[in-house]
Amino acid sequence: MELQYALELIGTFVFAISGALAVREKEHDLFGAGFTGFITAIGGGTLRDILLDSYPLVWIGDIHFLYAILLGILAAFLFPNLLSRLRKTFFLFDTLGIGFFTVLGVEKALNLGVRPEIAAIMGMFTAVMGGVIRDTLTNEIPILFRKEIYASACLVGAVAYLLFDYFGLERNYNLLVSMSIIISIRLIAMRYKLSLPRLD
Amino acid sequence: MELQYALELIGTFVFAISGALAVREKEHDLFGAGFTGFITAIGGGTLRDILLDSYPLVWIGDIHFLYAILLGILAAFLFPNLLSRLRKTFFLFDTLGIGFFTVLGVEKALNLGVRPEIAAIMGMFTAVMGGVIRDTLTNEIPILFRKEIYASACLVGAVAYLLFDYFGLERNYNLLVSMSIIISIRLIAMRYKLSLPRLD
Amino acid sequence: MELQYALELIGTFVFAISGALAVREKEHDLFGAGFTGFITAIGGGTLRDILLDSYPLVWIGDIHFLYAILLGILAAFLFPNLLSRLRKTFFLFDTLGIGFFTVLGVEKALNLGVRPEIAAIMGMFTAVMGGVIRDTLTNEIPILFRKEIYASACLVGAVAYLLFDYFGLERNYNLLVSMSIIISIRLIAMRYKLSLPRLD
Repeated sequence: MELQYALELIGTFVFAISGALAVREKEHDLFGAGFTGFITAIGGGTLRDILLDSYPLVWIGDIHFLYAILLGILAAFLFPNLLSRLRKTFFLFDTLGIGFFTVLGVEKALNLGVRPEIAAIMGMFTAVMGGVIRDTLTNEIPILFRKEIYASACLVGAVAYLLFDYFGLERNYNLLVSMSIIISIRLIAMRYKLSLPRLD
Repeated sequence: MELQYALELIGTFVFAISGALAVREKEHDLFGAGFTGFITAIGGGTLRDILLDSYPLVWIGDIHFLYAILLGILAAFLFPNLLSRLRKTFFLFDTLGIGFFTVLGVEKALNLGVRPEIAAIMGMFTAVMGGVIRDTLTNEIPILFRKEIYASACLVGAVAYLLFDYFGLERNYNLLVSMSIIISIRLIAMRYKLSLPRLD
Repeated sequence: MELQYALELIGTFVFAISGALAVREKEHDLFGAGFTGFITAIGGGTLRDILLDSYPLVWIGDIHFLYAILLGILAAFLFPNLLSRLRKTFFLFDTLGIGFFTVLGVEKALNLGVRPEIAAIMGMFTAVMGGVIRDTLTNEIPILFRKEIYASACLVGAVAYLLFDYFGLERNYNLLVSMSIIISIRLIAMRYKLSLPRLD
């Protein structure tokens, strides 16, 4: 459990960095970059918890999350070039992050008593809606609508978690397996530039 | 009451179809289209219920709404051309839908104990905010700001419902009359290309 | 306390005017302008209260706020040219407004029991998020990302309020001093076209 908590803080830290760096080519000043990092880091979990009426929100109830975000923003301010050069590393972190937060989001929703179908949606929202809100605020086409297999990988992993859970797989194994499914789909999709067909 | 419930599910189904088809000319893949259909269908009622602190949200508490949405998305995937050719039919469904959901939204807000002025706003939000959120996410000018008399028709119908209610009109008649007002305004505005004046 | 309540209503009135006038150069009709005024006036406080689970929302629990907004929209409809010519006056009002609502937002959040770090963010959100939501809906780059020192002035003032409060400054003095800090930063930034550095 302590490992999980540490990973949640690290994931929040990484999302804040990538959010702050996402507006680098734009006209945004430092404050705007920090704000964007903040929104990216909290957006998904906040939306999930508002939809499920789960209060206090994670980052409001536990100040460590805010500190993780501030550290991430600070890192983006101090080492923008270094971190941007680590783009590939960050892509990997982001992929690990969406896998991790999807599965935790599913679990939290289940614990709040919703049906599995709803929990799957909540898991995906947890992982991707921070980026969607960020992109909407900065007038970008949201990541959801442009990237190769991104949110859909999260949804597949969320459903996988629910199926494995239904068939009695132990929770920690399930976390790992379902995360791996999301990460694998995403990495394979990026490697081979796979995308879903369009509606036409 | 059962008729009303069936109509709510059908309205949700139709909104999901029109939402999924709304991004057809865009770069969105199937997942993006489904996501857009989902947001369009739940957006208005979800915003209303969050603003009024009414939990669980309708689609989270009653899984049938999610199934209606999934069916709508599936229909859009399987028969996009057929459904797009039914554009006129859909325009009619959408018009029926905003009339219906406006009046139900007003009623729900009243039942939650807010003042009539607030209930009128909530009715309009129920009907139009799903489309507004959809358009914002997909970088369109929201429907509210570009269409001939759209949200304003809902607001007029919402106020009509409140007035008739105040003067004691029986609830089911009131539903029908107020819906008809919204639908008539919208159809007449489209037929004669009426629009409100601009601010200048 | 009555003075404060009167100022809150006046601030809401002014935000509604400036929101309605903000879309003047756009294609929006009167309804769209009114809607924009409404969103601008309620957006920040609404977001704060949803994040903090504080219900009923201010404008839903106290109808006077809705009337202040409707009066503001009406004023914008009746005297658009006069009010637009008062641009400088409005800039001043807006600056007073963000100072005032920041400090009230901090105070409200503290009263709801959150930590000071969170209260500072809530104060800034109260002041600026109405404009951010307005700009997002109307496809503008949000004010936060383009204006010289705007939201950051609010954040500085919010932190100042918390520090003075910590050191025991009497509440009404603190309100005035912290507001003055925000207003001074904003005015000086505008006068000398100061802006924060960019991230590069």
